[in-house]
Amino acid sequence: MNLLGIDHGGTSTKLLLVDDDSVVDRATVATGSFADLDELADGLLAFLAGRPVDRFGLTVAGTLDPVTQVVLSSANLRWLDGLAPAALLAERLGVPGTAVQDGAAAATAEARLGAGRGAEDVFVVALGTGIAGAHVMGGQVRAGAAGGAGEIGHLVVTDGPLCSCRQRGCLETAIGGVQLGARWLEAGGVWSGPGAPTAREVVTAAEGGDPTAVATLATATDALARALLHLLALVDPGLLVVGGGVASAPRWTVEPAVRRLRELATFHRVPEVRLAELGSWAGAHGAVLAAGAVG
Amino acid sequence: MNLLGIDHGGTSTKLLLVDDDSVVDRATVATGSFADLDELADGLLAFLAGRPVDRFGLTVAGTLDPVTQVVLSSANLRWLDGLAPAALLAERLGVPGTAVQDGAAAATAEARLGAGRGAEDVFVVALGTGIAGAHVMGGQVRAGAAGGAGEIGHLVVTDGPLCSCRQRGCLETAIGGVQLGARWLEAGGVWSGPGAPTAREVVTAAEGGDPTAVATLATATDALARALLHLLALVDPGLLVVGGGVASAPRWTVEPAVRRLRELATFHRVPEVRLAELGSWAGAHGAVLAAGAVG
Repeated sequence: MNLLGIDHGGTSTKLLLVDDDSVVDRATVATGSFADLDELADGLLAFLAGRPVDRFGLTVAGTLDPVTQVVLSSANLRWLDGLAPAALLAERLGVPGTAVQDGAAAATAEARLGAGRGAEDVFVVALGTGIAGAHVMGGQVRAGAAGGAGEIGHLVVTDGPLCSCRQRGCLETAIGGVQLGARWLEAGGVWSGPGAPTAREVVTAAEGGDPTAVATLATATDALARALLHLLALVDPGLLVVGGGVASAPRWTVEPAVRRLRELATFHRVPEVRLAELGSWAGAHGAVLAAGAVG
Repeated sequence: MNLLGIDHGGTSTKLLLVDDDSVVDRATVATGSFADLDELADGLLAFLAGRPVDRFGLTVAGTLDPVTQVVLSSANLRWLDGLAPAALLAERLGVPGTAVQDGAAAATAEARLGAGRGAEDVFVVALGTGIAGAHVMGGQVRAGAAGGAGEIGHLVVTDGPLCSCRQRGCLETAIGGVQLGARWLEAGGVWSGPGAPTAREVVTAAEGGDPTAVATLATATDALARALLHLLALVDPGLLVVGGGVASAPRWTVEPAVRRLRELATFHRVPEVRLAELGSWAGAHGAVLAAGAVG
């Protein structure tokens, strides 16, 4: 069976063509080159270049109505709101497809095909600009009664600043990629580069011996450890998989957080922690998995 | 089918004899009147007085090996440690039976037969001396990978004192029945009665207009709201059921906590909250449910 995975992100769109379990082709396209779903469909047809597809899966960076698959709220692609993108693409491609929330897609792929391969009970944390979490049991995300479960990024764990979710002190304000840069500047970090510093620049400064960057990362990883402690107490997952851009410097992020978690744990069982394996392709692989599940 | 539920607590043992869905008889016996399992078996045979039983279920206040049903650690009945009580009672009673952890038994009963009746996805919180939590999905407790899930009482939500679990600031130190009395005294509450005050006495003082008791309860219910907020973010349960002795004065405990929860919630969906219905018999009903599940 030929399956097409479309990871439709705010910045780039990743396409993955899979024949059973082997990748046939992949491509990354700037999302801005598609003004609407018709242009996205044109791009998909150009990528396929006549190769057959049986089903497709499309990620949506936002919330989806689980029944109608209408986009309720897309953070970065407002023009998607109110549309049922999978139905519209199915018409153009001539094959059935499905839409899936991007975080759930990436977590499912990491749990089933990536670092969680073979494990029954995996909690996946993605440390990016935003922070996503998903408990994947037997290959299925436990979405919660209203689709709201896994929001580890919005556990209040510091006395920190206002979050985009209107709480104060969320984990995301301590270790989200952009927020980490902001915390460094607030603490007196010196930055002369273009734009605002993000996690990568804070890590580079820490590697260069900048004590403010080292302290900012210590605060951030302490916050991550405290959020993970809540997770162990409430959910007790079998395996933790941590990915996302902030985790790409694990010596400064994931590793100290796990050491701190072991220090803080008392009755808690600290599970094995693995780094994610699929990187920026996790969402596209998750879209392929969703495509394969279409009846 | 005649089923016997035995809720073997540290202080009292509750016996419940059920014929299909109707209660035939019940009794409460001081646990101290049984020096060992043989004496417990004598007590059960006296209660049954020749009435037939097909299966029994026994709660254990502690941890159980899930495979061998050996008691690993019983908090209040040390003489149970290392024994397989269900196997020993089965020999004396001549019928098969099973052991079940007491908190899981009570939560399952509340979810299936009590306030959660008819709901698929229920989180049960028991506010007693200790605080227990359990997520019951389709009538089954989600125990976690190592049996450690649901520990809402040991989420760190205040700057408070040392907890029995060796963390500081656990929910239990703010609203556990005995701890609530201790917090009141520390804040300057005046108590001349025998023994130490517990939740009941703090509520009585608050009802009498004692401002220290009112403030202690406000701190406690704020802590409960913050712990529940973590639960909504990570688990997103469909229904909350709150019971235990501290919840028996809901105007001073559960109701202000839920009001505070609604104030604090931003993106979170606050589920319906119901008071538990089975009271101190929840564990015995859970033991009957476990008995019914014996093959």
